[in-house]
Amino acid sequence: MHPPILFVLGGARSGKSRYAQRRAEALPGDLVYVATAQAFDDEMAARIASHRTDRGARWRTVEAPLALAGTIAAEAQPDRVLLVDCLTLWASNLLLADRADGEGADAAAGLVAALAAASGPVILVANEVGLGIVPDNALARRFRDIAGRINQAVAAAAHEVQFIDAGLPLRLK
Amino acid sequence: MHPPILFVLGGARSGKSRYAQRRAEALPGDLVYVATAQAFDDEMAARIASHRTDRGARWRTVEAPLALAGTIAAEAQPDRVLLVDCLTLWASNLLLADRADGEGADAAAGLVAALAAASGPVILVANEVGLGIVPDNALARRFRDIAGRINQAVAAAAHEVQFIDAGLPLRLK
Amino acid sequence: MHPPILFVLGGARSGKSRYAQRRAEALPGDLVYVATAQAFDDEMAARIASHRTDRGARWRTVEAPLALAGTIAAEAQPDRVLLVDCLTLWASNLLLADRADGEGADAAAGLVAALAAASGPVILVANEVGLGIVPDNALARRFRDIAGRINQAVAAAAHEVQFIDAGLPLRLK
Repeated sequence: MHPPILFVLGGARSGKSRYAQRRAEALPGDLVYVATAQAFDDEMAARIASHRTDRGARWRTVEAPLALAGTIAAEAQPDRVLLVDCLTLWASNLLLADRADGEGADAAAGLVAALAAASGPVILVANEVGLGIVPDNALARRFRDIAGRINQAVAAAAHEVQFIDAGLPLRLK
Repeated sequence: MHPPILFVLGGARSGKSRYAQRRAEALPGDLVYVATAQAFDDEMAARIASHRTDRGARWRTVEAPLALAGTIAAEAQPDRVLLVDCLTLWASNLLLADRADGEGADAAAGLVAALAAASGPVILVANEVGLGIVPDNALARRFRDIAGRINQAVAAAAHEVQFIDAGLPLRLK
Repeated sequence: MHPPILFVLGGARSGKSRYAQRRAEALPGDLVYVATAQAFDDEMAARIASHRTDRGARWRTVEAPLALAGTIAAEAQPDRVLLVDCLTLWASNLLLADRADGEGADAAAGLVAALAAASGPVILVANEVGLGIVPDNALARRFRDIAGRINQAVAAAAHEVQFIDAGLPLRLK
């Protein structure tokens, strides 16, 4: 049987990261936090530092702002739980680095292949960003498309998908 | 028994159109795609052309940027499946054409009457656009109100309502 | 047994207020509408007046743009139903009045304490505002964080949580 892949989707400040972390900590094995965040400014740096403190000493952190599939391939092991947080920042990083070929389709395919080959459990977190009004600027619309395409691909590959709102999980798959 | 009315609601790039299309293709009868999109710019024209190619030759396309109720009345037949995609662009077209009387209430009532009178199955797609922060400009807020009012009216009239996120359906009704 | 606390969450023009009102009117007792809205401009004043007319004469209205916990403490009684509409405007009021200490954590804690002490049923309405793309300006991002934090705290304290979309309820708890 393939090790479980759990996809946790939710809005900003929905409690999705905390939920995903709790699910990871309930599994046996070492805990590896695969961070896609990059600190471009002080606000972001403060959020990253605060999240790292919240997680505590049980977690080892690996940074993967762009090379996510490679990091999963290198880190996944039967006795380790990987938590990828989050795919939406990764989508943003790909777009800003001009590496969103096929509007996210290539990145999504590479990620799904890495998940299929992973020998240990992987939990992935993403933002749902497509439920507001259409953004004014074209870059934001491209970002929304890429993020949505990645979400669909990961949801199709996952064994379990949870949508989190106000801290409460709703099972989509 | 009234022919089924299915309402498919979801965010941008959620897989809602693909889901609705799959449901339409699973029904017996000819397939009619009722397009509300208007190509105001190259980005939009490219999206429309790409969607038409994706649907393939089984589909006949009818354009109804404004006269949606009349088009449903004219096209619905027991041996045809109508797929209306999407109500949110229709709401936008009504607003821009200054035809959103009653802030969408009149248009919604006309649409619901056409659905009640339809002699064949109708599948309708809409965007959920009300789950982001309040838009800065008043026109966007009016649009959000109109779109939401239409969604509520169609959801009340439909036999089945599915919310799609990351390609996965969640039944609301 | 503690009197029921119902939390109703939804997007703009989702039908959440109407749903909450219907649930309140189905309970025995006097009906008290705890309004957090403040009319800063004509658009807002028109919305407030229209909502008040829609509710009808059975309802008494109390305004609580900031002192929400105190108002709940003062008003809650076994023979009264309180409907708080809505927490998201309250979050916005706190932020604009520079009273969002702990980014909403203090306000949320005070509200949850008032709910725990309430001797009658309380129904609370909130907007989900975190499912669009990240807002451009920092104040909007702070607002989104505060609103989300309050939503999580109230959802944890509530006996029942309903998410409303297109007028249809989906039970989260």
